[in-house]
Amino acid sequence: MYQPFPADKIIDRLKQTLQGSKDMGEYINYLLNKPGKMLRSRLVYISSNLYPSRESLVIDVAVAIELIHLASLVHDDIIDNSTLRRGQESVNSKWNNKVAVLLGDYLFAEAFNIINKQNLPSVMETITDTIKIMCTGEIQQLNLINRLDITRTDYLEKIYRKTACLFASSCQVGGLISSMSHWQIGIIQNYGLHLGNAYQIIDDVLDFVSHPGLLGKPAGNDLLEGNINLPVIIALEDPVYGPKLKPLLSNQVNISMNLEKIISILNESYALDLAISEARNYLNQARQMLQQLPDGIARDDLSFLSDYLLNNYLPAGISSNYRKNTPESNVWM
Amino acid sequence: MYQPFPADKIIDRLKQTLQGSKDMGEYINYLLNKPGKMLRSRLVYISSNLYPSRESLVIDVAVAIELIHLASLVHDDIIDNSTLRRGQESVNSKWNNKVAVLLGDYLFAEAFNIINKQNLPSVMETITDTIKIMCTGEIQQLNLINRLDITRTDYLEKIYRKTACLFASSCQVGGLISSMSHWQIGIIQNYGLHLGNAYQIIDDVLDFVSHPGLLGKPAGNDLLEGNINLPVIIALEDPVYGPKLKPLLSNQVNISMNLEKIISILNESYALDLAISEARNYLNQARQMLQQLPDGIARDDLSFLSDYLLNNYLPAGISSNYRKNTPESNVWM
Repeated sequence: MYQPFPADKIIDRLKQTLQGSKDMGEYINYLLNKPGKMLRSRLVYISSNLYPSRESLVIDVAVAIELIHLASLVHDDIIDNSTLRRGQESVNSKWNNKVAVLLGDYLFAEAFNIINKQNLPSVMETITDTIKIMCTGEIQQLNLINRLDITRTDYLEKIYRKTACLFASSCQVGGLISSMSHWQIGIIQNYGLHLGNAYQIIDDVLDFVSHPGLLGKPAGNDLLEGNINLPVIIALEDPVYGPKLKPLLSNQVNISMNLEKIISILNESYALDLAISEARNYLNQARQMLQQLPDGIARDDLSFLSDYLLNNYLPAGISSNYRKNTPESNVWM
Repeated sequence: MYQPFPADKIIDRLKQTLQGSKDMGEYINYLLNKPGKMLRSRLVYISSNLYPSRESLVIDVAVAIELIHLASLVHDDIIDNSTLRRGQESVNSKWNNKVAVLLGDYLFAEAFNIINKQNLPSVMETITDTIKIMCTGEIQQLNLINRLDITRTDYLEKIYRKTACLFASSCQVGGLISSMSHWQIGIIQNYGLHLGNAYQIIDDVLDFVSHPGLLGKPAGNDLLEGNINLPVIIALEDPVYGPKLKPLLSNQVNISMNLEKIISILNESYALDLAISEARNYLNQARQMLQQLPDGIARDDLSFLSDYLLNNYLPAGISSNYRKNTPESNVWM
């Protein structure tokens, strides 16, 4: 487990920041029960530590990024009608959509409040631009639902907006609050982008092998919701398996009835393995970019993080082993 | 109609700001079809014109406040399951909750983006604090649903968070971006608070006499949703009508079945008139506060606005006449 990142301090700061609201307290405490891996605040923290930076400022920005991420998860669960998140009931499911809308708005406002108090216009601009990209990405995703003609370019655009953009921004703001040069901020941002792409691809693969304890949602959930992700795109491209797969995906009823068969095809066609191999490529590229940044513990940590994403979740034979051996405590997002 | 406020310029600026997003364009254009009275941006504009201010800055802040308001309306309609807004289908009804969540988030982000570009930390702080108050207010309101023991203090707290707070903040930020003194910003903020209280009370009264063309929702809609507002609180306090009214409000089915009778009681007991009289008191107080601000067109405009709220909607006998004579074009919110 990654050490230098002060996860407890970030969580304490989150609780302290949010405890002012008695009306929201119950919901906020519930969310913070399952803080997840805190990857985005981790990226802020480590990126800002490549160069000299002020810790209290770094913690504040890391907390703000974590709040933005939490807000987007709470709102995403409304959008996707999800009932589970991080192995517990989602806010919309445990309470209702009303609470989830308001809690998300509150967390967004709190994040902006924190950034504003530190008077960081460039960080604010990065974050507001990122939220706009994430929102339009979700709208775009709605338009791609059940579309079997989705291209790899569409998919990459989708995962950029959904995930990689916030990863990149987390690294970027980490750079902005340290004494890093513009040129190097570009590099660390690009590192975040590649890491984010890999992360989302792995997540999309895990969706086909997960159980509620791991990802907090049932296996094949993305597909059941009409999201055609990389493993499916790869399998559809396959001259042997593509024609077998296509009719099973013709509509939601078909998908739901044939889910087990679909997942078998994804395994047999090596589509899951090939998708993971693409994720691995992104991680390799991310690691290479780090060579242009100053040597030291922070850089090692970023490098470690890119290994960790893959190794911790995909031990050996990716298509079968980890279905059986995923510990309940592994909460991915 | 109020002249000096450049409504067209604000709408053009809104469209210009938002046209960058092709994915959101359809929804944004739909919203801007019915811009409403733009009271909050109007308050920003006029307040900032009490003292010297830079017009391009004022327009930007007015646009940001309008965006915050639009975002909160779009999200409120999810929360209340409303199907109508400003005489047209609500976004959640015309499309779905997904689109409404994302559109609201996008509008919030755009508002913060605008404020940030002008580098106005005090305005940003006011707005983020206001959003937090509005969100917790909505949560509080959920806890007050169907509670016949709601006090006037509860009600005032509720309308402060729901409405008056953003009115006050609109005036406050108008002051902040002009050369107004702290002391006078306090006054204009207080003016906004009183105006907002009056506005919400009038809105709550109109709910009992409205038709879809006027408020964009059916008569008695608030009560059907379990919101016990001032007219009902006043009628419940009445020694004669209170005991008649109480059993009709015991549950949602009862309310729904007896809505016409309930509205008759509110009329007969003069509860609607008494509520309007309270609104009038707030407006009188608001006007009095203006005496402490510099004489001139802007102050006259604020004074005119407080008359306008009441006179334009409540011509003569408040409890009956305007039910028949409200033009379709009067879109209140």
